[in-house]
Amino acid sequence: MKKINYSILALLGLVMVFTSCNDSGKKSSNGALASNNAEKVYVAPGEQDEFYAFMSGGYSGNLTVYGLPSGRMFKEIPVFSQFPTSGYGYSEETKPMLNTSFGFVPWDDSHHPDISQTNGELDGRWIFINGNNTPRIARISLSTFETEEIIELPNSAGNHSSSFITENTEYVVAGTRFSVPVPQRDMPINEYKGNFKGALSFVSVDPEDGRLDLKFQIMMPGFNYDLSHPGRGKSHGWFFFTTYNTEEANSLLEVNASQNDKDFIAAINWKKIEEYVNNGGGTKMPANYAHNVYSDETHTATSTMEKEVLTVDPTKVPGAVYFLPTPKSPHGCDVDPTGNYIIGNGKLSADLTVHSFDKMLAAIDGKKFDGEAYGIPILKFDDVLAGTVKSGGLGPLHTEFDGKGNAYTTFFISSEVVKWKLGTWEVIDRKPTYYSVGHLMIPGGNSAKPFGKYVVAMNKITKDRYLPTGPELEHSAQLYDITGDKMELIYDFPTHGEPHYAAGIPAEILAPKSQKIYKLAENKHPMATLGVNDARVERKGNEVHVYMAMIRSHFTPDNIEGIKVGDKVYFHITNHEQDFDVPHGFAMIGANNSELLIMPGQTKSLVWEPKEVGVWPFYCTDFCSALHQEMQGYVRVSPANSNIDLSWSLGE
Amino acid sequence: MKKINYSILALLGLVMVFTSCNDSGKKSSNGALASNNAEKVYVAPGEQDEFYAFMSGGYSGNLTVYGLPSGRMFKEIPVFSQFPTSGYGYSEETKPMLNTSFGFVPWDDSHHPDISQTNGELDGRWIFINGNNTPRIARISLSTFETEEIIELPNSAGNHSSSFITENTEYVVAGTRFSVPVPQRDMPINEYKGNFKGALSFVSVDPEDGRLDLKFQIMMPGFNYDLSHPGRGKSHGWFFFTTYNTEEANSLLEVNASQNDKDFIAAINWKKIEEYVNNGGGTKMPANYAHNVYSDETHTATSTMEKEVLTVDPTKVPGAVYFLPTPKSPHGCDVDPTGNYIIGNGKLSADLTVHSFDKMLAAIDGKKFDGEAYGIPILKFDDVLAGTVKSGGLGPLHTEFDGKGNAYTTFFISSEVVKWKLGTWEVIDRKPTYYSVGHLMIPGGNSAKPFGKYVVAMNKITKDRYLPTGPELEHSAQLYDITGDKMELIYDFPTHGEPHYAAGIPAEILAPKSQKIYKLAENKHPMATLGVNDARVERKGNEVHVYMAMIRSHFTPDNIEGIKVGDKVYFHITNHEQDFDVPHGFAMIGANNSELLIMPGQTKSLVWEPKEVGVWPFYCTDFCSALHQEMQGYVRVSPANSNIDLSWSLGE
Repeated sequence: MKKINYSILALLGLVMVFTSCNDSGKKSSNGALASNNAEKVYVAPGEQDEFYAFMSGGYSGNLTVYGLPSGRMFKEIPVFSQFPTSGYGYSEETKPMLNTSFGFVPWDDSHHPDISQTNGELDGRWIFINGNNTPRIARISLSTFETEEIIELPNSAGNHSSSFITENTEYVVAGTRFSVPVPQRDMPINEYKGNFKGALSFVSVDPEDGRLDLKFQIMMPGFNYDLSHPGRGKSHGWFFFTTYNTEEANSLLEVNASQNDKDFIAAINWKKIEEYVNNGGGTKMPANYAHNVYSDETHTATSTMEKEVLTVDPTKVPGAVYFLPTPKSPHGCDVDPTGNYIIGNGKLSADLTVHSFDKMLAAIDGKKFDGEAYGIPILKFDDVLAGTVKSGGLGPLHTEFDGKGNAYTTFFISSEVVKWKLGTWEVIDRKPTYYSVGHLMIPGGNSAKPFGKYVVAMNKITKDRYLPTGPELEHSAQLYDITGDKMELIYDFPTHGEPHYAAGIPAEILAPKSQKIYKLAENKHPMATLGVNDARVERKGNEVHVYMAMIRSHFTPDNIEGIKVGDKVYFHITNHEQDFDVPHGFAMIGANNSELLIMPGQTKSLVWEPKEVGVWPFYCTDFCSALHQEMQGYVRVSPANSNIDLSWSLGE
Repeated sequence: MKKINYSILALLGLVMVFTSCNDSGKKSSNGALASNNAEKVYVAPGEQDEFYAFMSGGYSGNLTVYGLPSGRMFKEIPVFSQFPTSGYGYSEETKPMLNTSFGFVPWDDSHHPDISQTNGELDGRWIFINGNNTPRIARISLSTFETEEIIELPNSAGNHSSSFITENTEYVVAGTRFSVPVPQRDMPINEYKGNFKGALSFVSVDPEDGRLDLKFQIMMPGFNYDLSHPGRGKSHGWFFFTTYNTEEANSLLEVNASQNDKDFIAAINWKKIEEYVNNGGGTKMPANYAHNVYSDETHTATSTMEKEVLTVDPTKVPGAVYFLPTPKSPHGCDVDPTGNYIIGNGKLSADLTVHSFDKMLAAIDGKKFDGEAYGIPILKFDDVLAGTVKSGGLGPLHTEFDGKGNAYTTFFISSEVVKWKLGTWEVIDRKPTYYSVGHLMIPGGNSAKPFGKYVVAMNKITKDRYLPTGPELEHSAQLYDITGDKMELIYDFPTHGEPHYAAGIPAEILAPKSQKIYKLAENKHPMATLGVNDARVERKGNEVHVYMAMIRSHFTPDNIEGIKVGDKVYFHITNHEQDFDVPHGFAMIGANNSELLIMPGQTKSLVWEPKEVGVWPFYCTDFCSALHQEMQGYVRVSPANSNIDLSWSLGE
């Protein structure tokens, strides 16, 4: 085993940061070329972008939507984090979405979005994204662009190798980055080795409504499971996960987890395991994990605690799991559009390792193993190797494909994107990134049918790319035109949060499906005020329920009396608009949550606990008409012992 | 008094929305013109924008930073809202920033940013922004781009006519939109008229460090105070506020507050009132409002409750306050660069009313009053009128200036920007907006020295301007080149939250001052770990304090044992990096707040209350080096009655 020199690695990191600075102030080509690039990225007023790009928010916990080629951000979709902008995670209807086995968790670290597929091609029904810190997977509708479901993953910690889907969206997977005791127990950390487990979760997706179900968890050795990708085409039925820390170190990992010359890609025959569990295999174990579902009909989320999970010991399913030796702490685990090539992006290496699915099957058939790890057969490196890309770069992280036989790999340390040819492994082109690229995205690049027009590089260091904004900067993306033999850098655009990964899709697939309003007639919210005549205020003990309607530019009721200090006032507000893009907002002074932003046809609820007597205003927060500033009302709050009856004005 | 026909107004709103749809699908000019516009907005990789644009977040509660002409968003600065992305409002250091007299309020509705000035010109030291729902003003450093101070405003409700500053940043003002009982008390809402008050707050700004102090509040009649602007040049010393609902209606305002043909602009001679209070005038009244200050040295905010406010009865200061009759529910209240013209943008009117400061002074001198309102003299409309812009538009909202003698006014209902000439009042140009513009911004347009190159229109309706994203859309801005006689629409870009207003400044004023790191040597956080050797874990009863250091790519300590269920674990984490753009993040599984994003040299703290025994991981959330994935650690949690001593690993 070759040893890594830690200080050299540390130096590499530093050198990278400093040398990249030397590029600052470098001006791009100007004149005819700049003009040409300007036209390439310009989307004139009245025109629209060609692609949607969905970028993970990283530490924002959300998902952002951009247009390509313009690089404009169209939306931030709240997923795992409280979002004061719309009241997500503050309103009564959406608080259950953030429930977990750890209680209410108002944040996560979202990494890898993946769009649903049918027959290996993007179908644009849903997009999935992982929560890394509190292990979860979310499903977001690509009609409403709302988070519809979040499922927690027990026995997991650092849900990083997620949320990638199989070619018919049969499963979305989730592999733990941090191995932990399973079940959790009080034990010394330095007894990690051999005792901690790495759960790989397979969550089934209902083909009709997308409903998630944690079908089984494979209890793997205590490595770190970093990234994953599905087999496709010939390799459909398999899933591949990169591992690092096969040393099973528990301290000073930046040294101790870099000792082995090769870690593994774990090849999982999930169809075999599915068959095994369908035939009664596996072990049910007690668990406690949240399953949160948002209904478009009731505009309300419910949270259910699930109490059991089916676990599978991989050594009990012969032929289901193998290890492919892969240099060197591999990060990205990517599968080409044909399904034959599995790329291990060894982040501490210069070269890229490409495994062959055909050779893997042959090696398995021939039982040519190089020992085993915790009972799982290790295939021989040379038996599964398709080829090596001698890149000349350093620190490969992630590879995507253009559907024309080319692959594009990011190199973090040498800060570049390298284009190379599948099969011949020759390097065709390389372009610098500014600075230190992590992942990259080609629309459909994770599918059997990529749309190879642009590469988006998601860079980790921004420095001087934009006007400075103090010590904290947004991250930066770069757009390359890849229609020619050589890549052309055409644009820089900042990104929100930290996009670790992205998924792109042609606008023509999604745009026609986009929902414009919620139909009021279909609103099944139990507290909805569907007719203005139903507007009312009701007291139940110290709970007061205000059933309120809103339409340009009026609240019904707009004056309320009879509220007392100590009451818990629920405003249930229904937006009666039925036109596209006419939301209303609702803000109540002194509320300890946020406002509500309510879409046409929707009902949302906000709780307010008035603490002081007085006359307190509320108003609409979304400029809705020429008389928006008049869209307001008052609540009179009387002492706790007051005898004033409830009364309200209906705008007569 | 002319009556407004409510149903016609409502219809206007609807017609506007529908007809604007007919523009969808209309393509902009292409060919040479489009190419020219593409080049105008294109900022090539390696180059930078010419202007910063600071846009209010509206219901996001924050402030966003864009570049012009590119329209790229460089940052979202958390101000009044919890921001999971950086831990603002979740970390121990920043939670006090969101303290108010109503308790912890994690959100607000931020409307009108204004950049500090010296001698009427932008000096780029600070930017101020108002919180509308829980009345507050925030001061943000334009070196660090961090919110440094928030002051609450008592006796106020709907702090809308804020946060505009005087020409040497002597004061930042805050006028209440909703009048309320002062002091608050339990009273019938329909006794509003004559009983509610409208407080105009003058908050002084320390010229050295920017520290805010609520100097005095003027207790005005119970109108709605909508927007405001300072006098400048000859009118320095005065402040102007638009009012509506001079009817003092309390229900169905969209009808009842639109009865009067003219409302008022209130002209406040603040120098006279300042002199009055400096000489002992005014009445101190009990109050309760939060004053929150963030220190760059300790990286920590403190919240103090202030207990008294100085109020001024305007009728007791002769010559200090006058009303200028202004048609018709005026919204924007804008003062031209010379300080002579005060524009009342009567939102329910077609014409623009321009008052003359010179004529106002003459009318005051001549005591030519048209009666009074609650003891405040009303000047005669014709005596103060400079001219009327017969715009041909409908629904004027806001006017800015190019410094070349031209003014630009938005018209919400007719959905256009109209350019007109100061002094002659002639309309020079008009261009449609897509759709329904609210406010607009010219860099420096609120100062004596505008930079009249671009107009940004902030539109309220987006519809088809971008790829659709479900029922909820971002708002849309449009960029016009105003260097020629005619305005040219050159770009559309989406905006985050709902920008109600913006302030722009040339990059060359701000960029050189932008701070890159916090110096570790100057870190005065009491819980900082300034040397790696100081890293330690200490128990105080059931509180455990972890003094942790982080540097690429390691936490010290990285393994901790001896924590028990029921403990309250404080992680105090110091980022030891001293390079630009090398933040680290910190995430702890099961924490019920968010991650921390910690800038170089900074210390932040996160509380975690472990509920279950086990071995639980933490990790860095910001990709920091090739070994970022190895930047992790574990905490062992033992039962509450365990005897395991605290121990930790320092990476030996």
